[in-house]
Amino acid sequence: MTETATTGRALPHPRPQEIRLETVLHALSDPMRLRIVRELAAVEAELSCSQFDVPVTKSTTTHHFRVLRESGVIRQVYRGTAKMNALRRDDLEHLFPGLLDSLLAAADRQAARLGDGG
Amino acid sequence: MTETATTGRALPHPRPQEIRLETVLHALSDPMRLRIVRELAAVEAELSCSQFDVPVTKSTTTHHFRVLRESGVIRQVYRGTAKMNALRRDDLEHLFPGLLDSLLAAADRQAARLGDGG
Repeated sequence: MTETATTGRALPHPRPQEIRLETVLHALSDPMRLRIVRELAAVEAELSCSQFDVPVTKSTTTHHFRVLRESGVIRQVYRGTAKMNALRRDDLEHLFPGLLDSLLAAADRQAARLGDGG
Repeated sequence: MTETATTGRALPHPRPQEIRLETVLHALSDPMRLRIVRELAAVEAELSCSQFDVPVTKSTTTHHFRVLRESGVIRQVYRGTAKMNALRRDDLEHLFPGLLDSLLAAADRQAARLGDGG
């Protein structure tokens, strides 16, 4: 294991069986949060909050990540001083097979249509 | 044509190119609205607002149908004195291929898992 050790500051996450479709859809119904999820899906890796190129204040960004975490869409883990974010792809796929890819495809398609980046 | 004539009271709907994924997801992020959409998908026909079995007041129901209409998820048309509702399946399929079926499958799966009806 070459990962940086996680610290003791564990953040609360819903267990898989607590994740609700309505809450996931609400989390993705904000353009900024949808953009964050698309970035996470594109890199297929963990990203720290500061690695996202979002045109909003830090407190707004923190809020968006919290909504994504509390809905079950992402997992947030402290590694050293950085809060790292990753999609909960396996949990979502198990609960709702095909849904995440379908949502990401729809978001890609809309971005291409509206010309607002990839 | 054997349809009842539509009256002059036309309700505003977004044009297909005005429909946004985020707004559609917001519309579906409410349990009652998701239930309405599942019912419409199941019957594959128009239903009047009064034909839905929803445990909320009429004004709340009206609000939910308005959110669904303004997001582009349903089309509402007056026929005589009844306001009829139908999924905008073709418009959504054209914009976001496969998304609606994927969302409906996820909703079915969750309903089966939680035992809250079909």
